[in-house]
Amino acid sequence: MKYGYFDDINREYIITTPRTPLPWINYLGQNDMYGLISNTAGGYTFYKDAKLRRLTRFRYNNVPRDLGGRYYYIKDGDSIWNPSYMPCKTELDSYKCRHGLGYSIFESAKNDLVSTLVCFIPLNDNVEIHKLTLKNNSSNQKHINVYGTAEWCLYNAEDDSVNFQRNYNIGEVQIDESTIYHITEYRERRNHFAFFHVNAPFDGFDSDLDTFVGKMNSWSDPQAVIEGTSYNSKASGWSPIAATRNDITLKPGEEISLIYLLGYCENDKEDKYLTDGKINNKEAQKIIKKYSTNESVRKAFTSLKEKWNNNLSKFHVESSNDKFDLTFNTWNQYQCMTTFNLSRSASYFESGIGRGMGFRDSCQDILGFVHIIPEKSRQRIIDIASIQFQDGSTYHQYQPLSKKGNADVGSGFNDDPLWLIACTSAYIKETGDLSILEEPVPYNNEEGTEQSLFDHLMTSMNYIYSHRGPHNLPLIGRADWNDCLNLNCFSLSPGESFQTASNFDSHKAESVFIAGMFVLYGKEYVKLANLINREKEANKATKEISNIEKAVIENGWDGNWYLRAYDAFENKVGSNENPEGKIYIEPQGMCTMAGIGKDKGLPKKAISSLEKHLLCKYGVQLLTPCYSKYHLELGEISSYPQGYKENGSVFCHTNPWIVISETLVGNNDMAFDLYKRYTPSFIEDISEIHKSEPYVYCQTVAGKEAQNFGEGKNSWLTGTASWSFVAASQAILGIKPSYEGLIVDPHLPKEMENVKIIRKFRDVTYNITIKNKSSGLRTMLVDGKINEDKLIKYNNANSLVDVVVNM
Amino acid sequence: MKYGYFDDINREYIITTPRTPLPWINYLGQNDMYGLISNTAGGYTFYKDAKLRRLTRFRYNNVPRDLGGRYYYIKDGDSIWNPSYMPCKTELDSYKCRHGLGYSIFESAKNDLVSTLVCFIPLNDNVEIHKLTLKNNSSNQKHINVYGTAEWCLYNAEDDSVNFQRNYNIGEVQIDESTIYHITEYRERRNHFAFFHVNAPFDGFDSDLDTFVGKMNSWSDPQAVIEGTSYNSKASGWSPIAATRNDITLKPGEEISLIYLLGYCENDKEDKYLTDGKINNKEAQKIIKKYSTNESVRKAFTSLKEKWNNNLSKFHVESSNDKFDLTFNTWNQYQCMTTFNLSRSASYFESGIGRGMGFRDSCQDILGFVHIIPEKSRQRIIDIASIQFQDGSTYHQYQPLSKKGNADVGSGFNDDPLWLIACTSAYIKETGDLSILEEPVPYNNEEGTEQSLFDHLMTSMNYIYSHRGPHNLPLIGRADWNDCLNLNCFSLSPGESFQTASNFDSHKAESVFIAGMFVLYGKEYVKLANLINREKEANKATKEISNIEKAVIENGWDGNWYLRAYDAFENKVGSNENPEGKIYIEPQGMCTMAGIGKDKGLPKKAISSLEKHLLCKYGVQLLTPCYSKYHLELGEISSYPQGYKENGSVFCHTNPWIVISETLVGNNDMAFDLYKRYTPSFIEDISEIHKSEPYVYCQTVAGKEAQNFGEGKNSWLTGTASWSFVAASQAILGIKPSYEGLIVDPHLPKEMENVKIIRKFRDVTYNITIKNKSSGLRTMLVDGKINEDKLIKYNNANSLVDVVVNM
Repeated sequence: MKYGYFDDINREYIITTPRTPLPWINYLGQNDMYGLISNTAGGYTFYKDAKLRRLTRFRYNNVPRDLGGRYYYIKDGDSIWNPSYMPCKTELDSYKCRHGLGYSIFESAKNDLVSTLVCFIPLNDNVEIHKLTLKNNSSNQKHINVYGTAEWCLYNAEDDSVNFQRNYNIGEVQIDESTIYHITEYRERRNHFAFFHVNAPFDGFDSDLDTFVGKMNSWSDPQAVIEGTSYNSKASGWSPIAATRNDITLKPGEEISLIYLLGYCENDKEDKYLTDGKINNKEAQKIIKKYSTNESVRKAFTSLKEKWNNNLSKFHVESSNDKFDLTFNTWNQYQCMTTFNLSRSASYFESGIGRGMGFRDSCQDILGFVHIIPEKSRQRIIDIASIQFQDGSTYHQYQPLSKKGNADVGSGFNDDPLWLIACTSAYIKETGDLSILEEPVPYNNEEGTEQSLFDHLMTSMNYIYSHRGPHNLPLIGRADWNDCLNLNCFSLSPGESFQTASNFDSHKAESVFIAGMFVLYGKEYVKLANLINREKEANKATKEISNIEKAVIENGWDGNWYLRAYDAFENKVGSNENPEGKIYIEPQGMCTMAGIGKDKGLPKKAISSLEKHLLCKYGVQLLTPCYSKYHLELGEISSYPQGYKENGSVFCHTNPWIVISETLVGNNDMAFDLYKRYTPSFIEDISEIHKSEPYVYCQTVAGKEAQNFGEGKNSWLTGTASWSFVAASQAILGIKPSYEGLIVDPHLPKEMENVKIIRKFRDVTYNITIKNKSSGLRTMLVDGKINEDKLIKYNNANSLVDVVVNM
Repeated sequence: MKYGYFDDINREYIITTPRTPLPWINYLGQNDMYGLISNTAGGYTFYKDAKLRRLTRFRYNNVPRDLGGRYYYIKDGDSIWNPSYMPCKTELDSYKCRHGLGYSIFESAKNDLVSTLVCFIPLNDNVEIHKLTLKNNSSNQKHINVYGTAEWCLYNAEDDSVNFQRNYNIGEVQIDESTIYHITEYRERRNHFAFFHVNAPFDGFDSDLDTFVGKMNSWSDPQAVIEGTSYNSKASGWSPIAATRNDITLKPGEEISLIYLLGYCENDKEDKYLTDGKINNKEAQKIIKKYSTNESVRKAFTSLKEKWNNNLSKFHVESSNDKFDLTFNTWNQYQCMTTFNLSRSASYFESGIGRGMGFRDSCQDILGFVHIIPEKSRQRIIDIASIQFQDGSTYHQYQPLSKKGNADVGSGFNDDPLWLIACTSAYIKETGDLSILEEPVPYNNEEGTEQSLFDHLMTSMNYIYSHRGPHNLPLIGRADWNDCLNLNCFSLSPGESFQTASNFDSHKAESVFIAGMFVLYGKEYVKLANLINREKEANKATKEISNIEKAVIENGWDGNWYLRAYDAFENKVGSNENPEGKIYIEPQGMCTMAGIGKDKGLPKKAISSLEKHLLCKYGVQLLTPCYSKYHLELGEISSYPQGYKENGSVFCHTNPWIVISETLVGNNDMAFDLYKRYTPSFIEDISEIHKSEPYVYCQTVAGKEAQNFGEGKNSWLTGTASWSFVAASQAILGIKPSYEGLIVDPHLPKEMENVKIIRKFRDVTYNITIKNKSSGLRTMLVDGKINEDKLIKYNNANSLVDVVVNM
């Protein structure tokens, strides 16, 4: 069952009913100001940091789930309705939600009144614009009341939902004829405020929630709207809101637009107040003036669209498969940028409170994003490296507002250091910018500790190699990529975090996955070292890589697949010997990508075993058989019911590793087959099962041992976005940046013929045509000349390069 | 305006409309299991710890505020309604909520169907009982569907509201013919579960929230109820609930009762499962069986009522003032017990997440509670003392489940140690049980550190005396009683906690309030030391007290009132020199109670100044003039808008100190006048202004500089309960336990004549009659004989003592 469709011309997903299986959301904003927006305009807005600088309130886990948002109310006679359906749920005569790139548009109509609500955050201002256009299509004059609303969050979203004995006392607002300023705590340490404005003097307002909605009523039936009035309430404590009322008369055929602005401003500490004691609102007035006309808003909207067209012009494919193309060209890249911007912090499933920016997450996000805006990736790499400790280990997360490591979440996730090599090498391959390796970067953000970024990568390598266990494999620490495989945790207390509990450190539990990473990214480190003439480092690392490779072959191979790990008692994890959790996906992908034991055929054997045991309708499950009871020695992974999350769901992030691996062992058709299983656009028709958005990946799809097999969860913010783009672009299409230039090495499935690709790489545009006859042979013409190698050496003599591959 | 009335015969407050200004709540439970319940049955249930073992989910700060609770749905033809009005808000033909002691009863009717819902937690089982009785008063047979519901919280209330990427995957239930077991995480580290049962096989059920309420519907319009059906859904992740359906036919005049049980059970780790793999539900079945009949429920309810009658029989007054009597005899004592049980953890304004048991809070709670159940007070004193450090300083809070100090909230609140002396002396005065002083108590809960409780008191004294500042006054540390007067904080970062931020420690900022406490409670310490023959300690302390007293007189007196403090730069706080915050309430009360400078007339002068500057319609404000801007050197107090909370509201906790002080300086009429200003039963008629419950104190009433002057906030869990009972009983009535016996020293106002009091003290019952002619003279007859002293020496030769005071 479908709930909408892709409009690929406009790069939009058009949702045709407000009643999707879950809220289907979109993101507004690209730089500092962000908004989550669902197909009923639910969600919230924040500045930089969803925890520390939340501008509007959203109650997670509400009933219904999607309650709270950008709610406009139209009272047209006895009918009260919202352009976005929620929260009144008045049935509309027509409804469409158009989720586009950085904007969402709600088109609806009721009783011949047609409404268009355009929501977006312009490129360079901290303001969310809601342009509401109303047209009277009836033959009678209409007198209507239009309400615009926002509920303020008291900035710290965590405190806002807990500390009521304080918070109910501090709410403050300041009101002028068309703007409600939210100034809670501005009197003290906050040098910032938010505002809600409408570009016409309002006929009434409310700023106190309880007054506006009325005693025991809610956002779905506000008393003020029912009465067609406003109470001009001034919030003093409790819950400050903004609710404006404009009384409008529309002749038959007449159209009117109101522009609403939800803005954020900061002032200098010394310049917080005007001479009359009111807050300094100069910056706000500037924004208000700038976006006061339909023309100026249209211009800002066009700039946003142009920006996105430009972002997506750098890598474009045309194949015979529409779903592949629209996923590749638009939605996957869009998701890569969103995930890069927000890491795992703010979605309908990530509350924005629990997690800041992840070290490992952010490193991986760069892999799929770096070609879009390399400069942002560069800055992110520096930011991330700055939370590394001098021994090479790292904080696991940092808050975006402070960029300081988050001590509460701790450290000791032993894969983290290697991801820094992964993203640095991806950045350099994309840009050729070796200078980043010389960039001075502090350790743990401490002044005076700055060393070159290369020094950071060196400590990463050293940390892993110097922390090995009894089988010469890297120690796993708290966990590796699989946060829930906690081999040193041994938690007995309910509710205790498996990631921060410290009950036991065996100094014995080892990860085959990290070993794979060490080989894969270690080789990149060696190349980088050679590129900047650090041969001694390169040679040392080469020897270490070879030792680890040997250890995997000797101690990390289970006969038919790669082992997952050794636990704290040196018992095997992910072995045929285990009654449950016999085989895991992660080491099959990582060790295959690293080519460990390739000459002995291990990767091919591993991938074949994986297909046999782990492949299901919606992709490759994380493990099998799922754990049916809690294993103290394995930690959180066994705490999930069978088939969910790490305990045997299709944990999507890992699936692109297998797509890549399939191409590496020569199974091009299987690679694409798998890609289609876990990529949601391909299962749009069963959205009633998948439930999550068909235009973006989710973190996890319930596995076949779960009650709700096929149900997707935790959409949007997942490393799947980045890795799937890497798999599609570098493995399937085979367009692979390298230090020396662009590699073109397609692994197309039989069904994909005649593929055209535009790839802007550094300052050269490559027009690539692949003619796929699955002949088993391959020739490549570069500007008409045969290129013996798969590599097209970088050369900016021509800004346009024509490539033809016959295969 | 009133929203109900006191039914003093039944010790109930009867609310006659669901539409109170705020949710008016009550508490169920006395030992381990607790429930908050509002006048529309809102609220939640928990076991021991509102943070770590929350059984049902409640969304704080919802719209409307009071949404989520014990919701029963009756579908009677087209009409769907709740016996408690919410959440359907179907207008009822009649409605009454009777909040009693440990129970709440909802009496309502719709379309001649009469409903009575009785909610309570029996004395000795971990189960909340909801008995629903329905009677058909119409002349037609009725076919109705009755739904009982509960929404499960995943036990840790904090995690439950944040960590959705995990939590939406782990929900599990087990269902039998009349019980839904909530077994989330039981498969792993939880050895406990909750259950919801109805004492008749149900005709249908749901255990998945989204299925029951339907897509985009809510608790106010569940799809299943609208359809008159159930979907028999089994929760797997997302939000597990319990929703049972019973289809009932009632003949004209027929009545039926359904008993619903919301229970909690723990199993041994080794005994979690039955042989068939199902959870071990033997304990649950025992409870279910025990409360399966109307008779057994009636018996349990009667026992609860008897228990409370017994609790309240220990101290009873009959005066000419009904409001005074019902406050004193019922509601104030009831609030004392509730506050003692829960400290500041769980109300509609304390989310149960932010705070565990407070050190200072719990010590003070004992003062008003100790006479009710001395044994519980004894245990509490030991628990509290166990979070003291060896140097005498203390943790500020502990979690009730673990009883371990909460490191997140920290320590360094320099008044804390002295409150331990306050409650220990109150306990010993009440019971005569000096043995508690010899009780071995660990420091910081570390085994092997046990010392006698007296040793703890000694370290308390030493800590204060050894931490003095430039004026020989005690250092304030992070703060004293006034958590928001942070003289060593200097916080510049928005959102930073003023209580835990560490930016600066002047080692200079001093508290006159702590000085007052040191004198007041130091004298009690001296008496205790003498009682157990620790003369050396007594003499040392006496000298120290005298030094501190001298310091207050020399450096802590501002000319017309006691200073509040010296800040980190040795500047005065609460002085006439200050443009704002010239005079504070706390030192006037504490130093007057300590009698500092009594011979020089300082207390009298201070109280007179306080009346002049701080007294308002609703009591005595905390300070004046309120701070109009943020003072870095004062901390949180200046962060509140004027007239709210510590910045100049009537912070109720402090007002009883002034009632006591007024009696000490001879103003008996003023003492009672003030008592009536801040005691909510006396302002019941203006509940539309006060907003909070008229039967319990709230923490704060907005002061005259606030927009909402007179509005009460943060009701129920406040030290006001305890202190106001001390003021009423020990100061106004003058019935004062002492080490040697009972002191009878009334300070009745003129308007209060002929007061009769029953006071059970240790094992003697005192029948006290006071005949008040305000003559200025006083005689006391004890068993007919003149008692020269105010003290009636303890003597258990007679278990009944008759006392007559003429004054």
